[in-house]
Amino acid sequence: MKTRAAVAWEANKPLTIETINLDGPRAGEVLVEIMATGVCHTDAYTLSGLDSEGKFPAILGHEGAGIVREVGAGVTSVRPGDHVIPLYTPECRQCKTCLSQRSNLCTAIRSTQGQGLMPDSTSRFSCSDETVFHYMGTSTFSNFTVLPEIAVAKVREDAPFDKICYIGCGVTTGVGAVIHTAKVWPGANVVVFGLGGIGLNVIQAARMVGADKIIGVDLNPSKVAMAKKFGMTHFVNPDEVGRDKVVEAIVDLTGGGADFSFECIGNVHTMRQALECCHRGWGESIVIGVAPSGAEISTRPFQLVTGRVWKGSAFGGARGRTDVPKIVDWYMEGKINIDDLITHTMPLEEINTAFDLMHEGKSIRSVVVF
Amino acid sequence: MKTRAAVAWEANKPLTIETINLDGPRAGEVLVEIMATGVCHTDAYTLSGLDSEGKFPAILGHEGAGIVREVGAGVTSVRPGDHVIPLYTPECRQCKTCLSQRSNLCTAIRSTQGQGLMPDSTSRFSCSDETVFHYMGTSTFSNFTVLPEIAVAKVREDAPFDKICYIGCGVTTGVGAVIHTAKVWPGANVVVFGLGGIGLNVIQAARMVGADKIIGVDLNPSKVAMAKKFGMTHFVNPDEVGRDKVVEAIVDLTGGGADFSFECIGNVHTMRQALECCHRGWGESIVIGVAPSGAEISTRPFQLVTGRVWKGSAFGGARGRTDVPKIVDWYMEGKINIDDLITHTMPLEEINTAFDLMHEGKSIRSVVVF
Repeated sequence: MKTRAAVAWEANKPLTIETINLDGPRAGEVLVEIMATGVCHTDAYTLSGLDSEGKFPAILGHEGAGIVREVGAGVTSVRPGDHVIPLYTPECRQCKTCLSQRSNLCTAIRSTQGQGLMPDSTSRFSCSDETVFHYMGTSTFSNFTVLPEIAVAKVREDAPFDKICYIGCGVTTGVGAVIHTAKVWPGANVVVFGLGGIGLNVIQAARMVGADKIIGVDLNPSKVAMAKKFGMTHFVNPDEVGRDKVVEAIVDLTGGGADFSFECIGNVHTMRQALECCHRGWGESIVIGVAPSGAEISTRPFQLVTGRVWKGSAFGGARGRTDVPKIVDWYMEGKINIDDLITHTMPLEEINTAFDLMHEGKSIRSVVVF
Repeated sequence: MKTRAAVAWEANKPLTIETINLDGPRAGEVLVEIMATGVCHTDAYTLSGLDSEGKFPAILGHEGAGIVREVGAGVTSVRPGDHVIPLYTPECRQCKTCLSQRSNLCTAIRSTQGQGLMPDSTSRFSCSDETVFHYMGTSTFSNFTVLPEIAVAKVREDAPFDKICYIGCGVTTGVGAVIHTAKVWPGANVVVFGLGGIGLNVIQAARMVGADKIIGVDLNPSKVAMAKKFGMTHFVNPDEVGRDKVVEAIVDLTGGGADFSFECIGNVHTMRQALECCHRGWGESIVIGVAPSGAEISTRPFQLVTGRVWKGSAFGGARGRTDVPKIVDWYMEGKINIDDLITHTMPLEEINTAFDLMHEGKSIRSVVVF
């Protein structure tokens, strides 16, 4: 079949809208009509050429929502008409990692996904006889896309696509880090470095689970109003307290240190501050942000020996097929706010504007509606 | 009263045996006759002058066992005749940390202990009118010593002092890291960096809780026989596999990485290897070794984002008064082996020999018997 898609032909060039060829779903695969997709920093990172795994030409996009239109042989968990969110972290429930019940990082299709291919090592996309690669196993910048059955989460049908698409990455990454990775307890003091889209989702999840102090750290005071709306109780601006006094300021504010801190920037210096502002004895710091290639985190081991814990979170520690539908429910029940985070909506033809808005810091999240 | 003690008059000088003055126990304190004491690397570290908190003259020693001879006003949990192990990590059961139930790092007397003083900010020791400082709140290189009530663990009376003194530090540090900090599960694959006294205690605890592979890493193949006796199932010599291939060798041996690793050396390079040899998704690395002052650990944050956890352990995460008596029971029941770890025993007059044996690598643990 033919479908419209935004194609990334090479690094650092705007996407172009093309009519491309899409092969139908093979065994264990589903065809999904994408109704809406967010544009995320990770798409921009790959488009920039800095992602060593990035392949071109490719159809980017990993934060979508849509409707199953066709299923391949052997597919049993979804059927045409089902509403789904594509999963760049699948959930096979069969691999060593899924069966360990200790991690969401399913490895069933990891190697082919990293190569921009479907599990049978081929691509379903082509354009004028040239192969076009998949991206993160999802390629939601195409109106129609093919995914493995294990890489779609079935969700309720009354949820609006142009909002729940954000659950495909950003919302789950922030909310899940609080709930699944950190397991923040009621009354905990929480610190959030970076008040962008991920940080705001961390904040609202911390509020949802009953955290006490929720302290935001950001250089940009214009972010305070929105963060407060999402649940931030205190704000620390490193330029006001002194960039080398951030840890001290947080230790003072919390009477000894944070129970949990979350780094949502991707800066190795703030990652260190996030660890060291944790409470002696039990404070846990969760790295969410993606640091530049080659950058390293450091600290004195004494920080760990005296009880702080350093961990990380990918896709919020969420098992996609199991946990994503619950987050959709929470949105529909009003427990989490997505509407205010989606600052811009546009048609596919204007997708490059979404990247511009992101780079200019004007959007929290832009959503493309097909 | 008068007591015999080995006094450290200044850094890098042998200890000298003196008859010193000891004031009796004040309110909340107990007088303990030390029957035996281990000599630990931490004593040697402080004696070397590298410990920035080290004060001289002092009576070192923190790994003792003895008998309560007198109690001060208000002491209710022990009485004369009770057998006890002094605790350099006390357990007050009243401070924020004890009440958190998330850490063993009781803070009740931390500030005065770090200054070489009792909780009322004075010393009980003097020699020819010169104040002699306490050390780690224990000073077990004195035949009699005074301790806060919260810093003694009451233990069974049939346990031999010259063995259970080792539970005052080394045994609990290794065994506790496995049980309390890591909570190693049956069937886990465990890696232990450094096959000294701490490493051997990690190994025997891993065996006790039913670990599967227990892999030792050390440059010295002469340590293999003892490690195997304690439960090591596989040995990796970095000089044989290649010093930069240690992580790879462990990932191969474990089919993906360790469930738990323990760094028992105090080297920041092996701390990094210990983290990076852990299994993607859930592997946890526990720092036990004490690194040189100023040294820092580093890794790529990707290691954490993909599910590895970096933590540390002090005194094995054990709450002294609660957990130390249980470890004494385990020793008496034959669940853990201490006898083979105590390679040398000597009278107080020969305590400098214990330091020599340690520096020459000839002992696992030397015990001074009074």
